[in-house]
Amino acid sequence: MTSITVNLPETAYEIVISPGCLSQLGSQMKKLNVGKKVLVVSNPEIFAVYGDTCLQSLKAAGFEVYHHLIPAGETYKTLQSLEQVYDTALKHHLERSSTLVALGGGVIGDMTGFAAATWLRGVNFVQVPTTLLAMVDASVGGKTGVNHPQGKNLIGAFYQPKLVLIDPNVLKTLPEREFRAGMAEVIKYGVIWDADLFGKLEQAEQIDSFAHIAPELLETILIRSTQAKADVVSQDEKEAGLRAILNYGHTIGHAVESLTHYEQFVHGEAVAIGMVAAGKIATQMGLWTEEEADRQDRLIKKTGLPTTIPAKLDVDAILETLQSDKKVKSGKVRFILPTQIGKVEISDRVTTEIINEVILALR
Amino acid sequence: MTSITVNLPETAYEIVISPGCLSQLGSQMKKLNVGKKVLVVSNPEIFAVYGDTCLQSLKAAGFEVYHHLIPAGETYKTLQSLEQVYDTALKHHLERSSTLVALGGGVIGDMTGFAAATWLRGVNFVQVPTTLLAMVDASVGGKTGVNHPQGKNLIGAFYQPKLVLIDPNVLKTLPEREFRAGMAEVIKYGVIWDADLFGKLEQAEQIDSFAHIAPELLETILIRSTQAKADVVSQDEKEAGLRAILNYGHTIGHAVESLTHYEQFVHGEAVAIGMVAAGKIATQMGLWTEEEADRQDRLIKKTGLPTTIPAKLDVDAILETLQSDKKVKSGKVRFILPTQIGKVEISDRVTTEIINEVILALR
Repeated sequence: MTSITVNLPETAYEIVISPGCLSQLGSQMKKLNVGKKVLVVSNPEIFAVYGDTCLQSLKAAGFEVYHHLIPAGETYKTLQSLEQVYDTALKHHLERSSTLVALGGGVIGDMTGFAAATWLRGVNFVQVPTTLLAMVDASVGGKTGVNHPQGKNLIGAFYQPKLVLIDPNVLKTLPEREFRAGMAEVIKYGVIWDADLFGKLEQAEQIDSFAHIAPELLETILIRSTQAKADVVSQDEKEAGLRAILNYGHTIGHAVESLTHYEQFVHGEAVAIGMVAAGKIATQMGLWTEEEADRQDRLIKKTGLPTTIPAKLDVDAILETLQSDKKVKSGKVRFILPTQIGKVEISDRVTTEIINEVILALR
Repeated sequence: MTSITVNLPETAYEIVISPGCLSQLGSQMKKLNVGKKVLVVSNPEIFAVYGDTCLQSLKAAGFEVYHHLIPAGETYKTLQSLEQVYDTALKHHLERSSTLVALGGGVIGDMTGFAAATWLRGVNFVQVPTTLLAMVDASVGGKTGVNHPQGKNLIGAFYQPKLVLIDPNVLKTLPEREFRAGMAEVIKYGVIWDADLFGKLEQAEQIDSFAHIAPELLETILIRSTQAKADVVSQDEKEAGLRAILNYGHTIGHAVESLTHYEQFVHGEAVAIGMVAAGKIATQMGLWTEEEADRQDRLIKKTGLPTTIPAKLDVDAILETLQSDKKVKSGKVRFILPTQIGKVEISDRVTTEIINEVILALR
């Protein structure tokens, strides 16, 4: 069992990574000194497979357990879904010492986290991510929220979990497309932070599905990715500076995702496209070598991820969407640009002309 | 000009109290190092009287100013009103460095604060309270939120303002009933924290309206009340312990307010009733002398505040509502009970029998 500690100014919590640890949810939570009531939030598909294991484990540890299901998908990541979580919390008289457990992917994690952050002005929160993306990205770092009809994650809060429980075995049932989407964020950590992880991914024969990847490599990926994220958020909890590097690939990625109404691409696919775009911007500006950018793009392709922007998307619409991004500061769009594998810089000097050019080149 | 500093683990901010300071909103905000865009949130009645002064002051200081109006009243303190604030924030492309200014009473302050806490996961927030209640209570301490259809403030966050600007002159236009409601919280600080303030209120000839109160006493009230609140929240930002004493009168107060659908009583009136009830519980339990409890009740009556529970309210309904209160811990309702004027203790030993008896006695 690997345990990574995330240290933050006001709190600290553990990320536990271990095959089969799902059945230890109850005993792990008992260590946290939380109240008796637990509300597990999940979606019907995930809950059908893993709900029983979680509930039994919690009940065996003495918790009083309820559950609330939200239909799967980004389209349900809304204030309306959140209201229904509140209703369930009220119905079962959850108290401030009670705990909300997110059992699912990033959508369930973000939404449950935001519900935990805001119900009674804050109850306990535990993450049990069931997708690779949620394991390596969404479940660590405390970003919670829901979408606004006009933009992703525009409504939310920084709120830290008390525990993150990662069981690699649950990835068995993850659709291959979702697995690849998660790999996009893993590649991201390689490019922005961990050149060694990047090298390991390059050397691996296949990384495009759970069935093809070596179990040891998968465990390494989970440990190094969550460690990378924990390192970054420990240094900058509220995204004042450094943390912004985690948005590598997300600037154009978000725009593409938003303009295709969260239907054509899953998040990781949009990030893959965004990384290709950001890499190209970096080479155009002379910040990154074309050779390294090519290595990134080859790794993305090897994972089976998309690398082009749909031609149907209007360039002006993309530029306008960039302007309403959360990361805009004084009207300037900030980009995370690689300078070498394992290193990036934050730049607000990317001109509209370059963005234009790169978008056109990638269609 | 009096300035009180609220020191918190992660931040600090000033409460500025000065007659006429409304016109200094812009210059005061300029010191804060915030972004250019400001969204003033208010209600139509308040904005008609004070909107221009605020907007002009902000524009003169170089800010780019927008405003958003929400109809007055507790019934609009909803997730739906919040969504409309989000829409306006999106429309004007507010950024993380932008500021939301709450110009109004507690409802506007709580809702604007929650919008600030959750838009883009947190933008800057400034409070300009225009009611006595908001000045001495709601604007200090960082509690923000909206109501759930079944309970007050069930949805919210702890989020600190960057500045609180209190101009006593605006109380001129406050309805007398609202003034008296604010005095309920002032009396509360006397009972729980500041015996000297309590004495000053007892000695004053009249305290039941802005027209009757001496300007010096009003300024003293504002300074001592906000100082009391600042003292308490500085020691306990997230209501882990001490801060709970601020809920004196709020336990039964909230139940009465909720069961009369926020229509019969304004918040301060419900708190007045709640203080009488809590005082009676304390004397019944032998914690407080009847003599001091009588002094409290006389002061409440002198202010023109209600001291009885409507006979139409079902005792069982009140008891049930207490159970769904945020302050419930492991199923036990916690009460704040005076032990002498200026001192209270937190108790979960209040039996249903005593609550029952006291409710019946106050009808």
